Amino acid sequence: MFEKVLIANRGEIALRIHRACKEMGIQTVAVHSTADADAMHVRLADEAICIGPPAPKDSYLNIPAILTAATLTRADAIHPGVGFLSENARFAQMVEDHGIAFIGPTPHHIRVMGDKVAAKDEAKRLGIPVVPGSDGAVETEEEALKLAKEIGFPLIIKAAAGGGGRGMKVASKMEEVAQAWAICRTEAKAAFGDDTVYMERYLSRPRHIEVQVLGDGKGSCINLGERDCSIQRRHQKVIEEAPSPALNATQRAQIGETVNKAISEMGYRGAGTIEFLYEDGEFFFIEMNTRLQVEHPISEMVCGIDLVREQIKVAAGIPLAFSQEDITFNGHSIECRVTAEHPETFMPTPGKITDYHAPGGLGVRVDSQLYSGYSVPPYYDSLVSKLVVHGANRNECLMRLKRALDEYVIGGIQTTIPLHQKIIAQKPFIDGDYDIHWLEKWMGLK
Amino acid sequence: MFEKVLIANRGEIALRIHRACKEMGIQTVAVHSTADADAMHVRLADEAICIGPPAPKDSYLNIPAILTAATLTRADAIHPGVGFLSENARFAQMVEDHGIAFIGPTPHHIRVMGDKVAAKDEAKRLGIPVVPGSDGAVETEEEALKLAKEIGFPLIIKAAAGGGGRGMKVASKMEEVAQAWAICRTEAKAAFGDDTVYMERYLSRPRHIEVQVLGDGKGSCINLGERDCSIQRRHQKVIEEAPSPALNATQRAQIGETVNKAISEMGYRGAGTIEFLYEDGEFFFIEMNTRLQVEHPISEMVCGIDLVREQIKVAAGIPLAFSQEDITFNGHSIECRVTAEHPETFMPTPGKITDYHAPGGLGVRVDSQLYSGYSVPPYYDSLVSKLVVHGANRNECLMRLKRALDEYVIGGIQTTIPLHQKIIAQKPFIDGDYDIHWLEKWMGLK
Repeated sequence: MFEKVLIANRGEIALRIHRACKEMGIQTVAVHSTADADAMHVRLADEAICIGPPAPKDSYLNIPAILTAATLTRADAIHPGVGFLSENARFAQMVEDHGIAFIGPTPHHIRVMGDKVAAKDEAKRLGIPVVPGSDGAVETEEEALKLAKEIGFPLIIKAAAGGGGRGMKVASKMEEVAQAWAICRTEAKAAFGDDTVYMERYLSRPRHIEVQVLGDGKGSCINLGERDCSIQRRHQKVIEEAPSPALNATQRAQIGETVNKAISEMGYRGAGTIEFLYEDGEFFFIEMNTRLQVEHPISEMVCGIDLVREQIKVAAGIPLAFSQEDITFNGHSIECRVTAEHPETFMPTPGKITDYHAPGGLGVRVDSQLYSGYSVPPYYDSLVSKLVVHGANRNECLMRLKRALDEYVIGGIQTTIPLHQKIIAQKPFIDGDYDIHWLEKWMGLK
Repeated sequence: MFEKVLIANRGEIALRIHRACKEMGIQTVAVHSTADADAMHVRLADEAICIGPPAPKDSYLNIPAILTAATLTRADAIHPGVGFLSENARFAQMVEDHGIAFIGPTPHHIRVMGDKVAAKDEAKRLGIPVVPGSDGAVETEEEALKLAKEIGFPLIIKAAAGGGGRGMKVASKMEEVAQAWAICRTEAKAAFGDDTVYMERYLSRPRHIEVQVLGDGKGSCINLGERDCSIQRRHQKVIEEAPSPALNATQRAQIGETVNKAISEMGYRGAGTIEFLYEDGEFFFIEMNTRLQVEHPISEMVCGIDLVREQIKVAAGIPLAFSQEDITFNGHSIECRVTAEHPETFMPTPGKITDYHAPGGLGVRVDSQLYSGYSVPPYYDSLVSKLVVHGANRNECLMRLKRALDEYVIGGIQTTIPLHQKIIAQKPFIDGDYDIHWLEKWMGLK
């Protein structure tokens, strides 16, 4: 096992990784910008090295500085965390070229899944369902009708030059296809001077459901169930839950089997997430994230498995100690991403924390870098706390979440706690009946 | 269900009860002394009433003031917490006489179990094993030999007038009984002027193992497994764990069955704990606590059941929603009682908390009234935080506990965190091989 891990990140995720290392008896090295000298993970780490000024490009994205810090401190391994360099294949390769273990997938897998076109091709090859559609332009009515049969309904015809909701026609049955195709072409020509159109399955109210995977690069690949991350604003996840209220046991087993088969064939090493749009019982591949995700704690809460520890173990060449049959799912978990933003305008609210009381008690987990007296710097992502609750069932979990949010005190700056309190009081949320558009519609943004 | 619960306690347990109430949608009333006006539970409660000056007899033991507060706020029920009035049968009766529900057992059960002699008789009647011994003086050699057969070995003969380790003889087999009895009598006469001696089974290295029970007073009685509370100093529990490292599945099932049968026959209502000394596979009744216990969270962590919620439900007349078969035990949990005391001299260390960072992350629960800026008053019990960790097994739990203790920052006052850090590094603790004398022996106190 590694003796010393360098944590190439900041904020709550750096603290998260530090905790996993310490529970394994591994020494930690924090690297930080000048703005983060008094950060919690820096204060707790066994060693800390300043790697540059506040701007991310000069510090947390500064590959030479990070590699120098790892060499100087004789770190065995680097954990890239979330964001920053976590999906940078070149960084992963350079780390390995320095004889240091990269706690993540192989550079090859990061590269393939980081390219949208290559990732979709790879997903198809691996038997992961993608949104059915035309491979490019649909130039004749005959072709449109033929493709429509393959794609299924409802389908959408889109102007290649369109965007922002313009130049689109939905056809809900075969009889509508020819006319929709013709109108869309005409309108596209008139609006954009280009009548190129393409077709794909239309999802009117999809959910974002993702499956957490874990592989050891030695043939063992399992999944830790799904997370429902449909509560989004501007494509940013706000609240996540596991399991998804939308899936039944059969659907869960089926997508799990599909995913396990695919990552086994990849020979995937490390933690990863395969993200899907889900509607009416069907899953459609969006992308694969070849790293830890912000919302990983909810999977940990229902499975009882420390994902960061598993990442570290497989990076050290240790095979997975469990198979799919060993994974049991217990209860329900929800995470609220608390950010240093105004709860209505979403303006960032950096500044000094004057009072701090994190909720505690049964079934409440707080992953946060905050403490009373700490100043949230203005340079980075606004995530300041992940409030994660667990309950024997979804209803217990919701009651506990309300209690924990009501109890949470972050004084001195505004945060999105009031937004979370409002969201969880809405009937669609309580009923688990929401899609990826619900939050923005409810907020009047759509 | 109750609409409003008055919490007749302070500190972390008042906060604990508040949390359970809020998760059930119940309003809370805090009562507090003048010294606790800025306490966390007072700040969080829906209503707060000052019931008197700092001295416990004038506030938290002030029955008229508490009953007046309950009447004024129209509370439906009173939760007495731990300590103070929680095992006061007269208080329980007065609460019920005021038409307010007492969240605890019936006054009758509190009274019986609060009387040492009556409790032991009741335990015998209910089939709970007690330490076998003579009923009073053993006056002849013949009687000594006859009793020895019934009591078993090793046994101890004690001078009735003795104490502090003087006037005692251990006999480890039948051949030693007559002589030990004679010598003990002679020595007792010489030392105390009184040759009265009695006999009982001798436990040389017992563990303290207790079983958490829950009954609805309507015929359903279950147990939530055992807790090992052998890490003690001056009869005060310091660290507790569940399950006990000393028991195997058969022993666990047997004591569970014995206990369930007993509390069913009692028709017990509420949460309670039956405490035992345990040695070489045998259990011996110490006492029954007819209330919540400080160490209840470790049972909650392994069972996933909120004990305070269950207390409230049965007090409201709702039958238990689960039977013994529904209770599953998951992993291992350990609690450290962090007190505001010097970690070596145990002098109380009241004062202002200047920095506070509670450990977070997977498997870590903190039940504490502390916050940065809070002043620990000098008038009450020194318990300021219960650090509770859970792991898939005992080893994971130990690693997590070390990490959490290392991460815990309580600035401004000294606490027993350094003592806990030392204890959990000792081989007997790591091996789970300790008895109720171990801590004091290791500390050089014995």
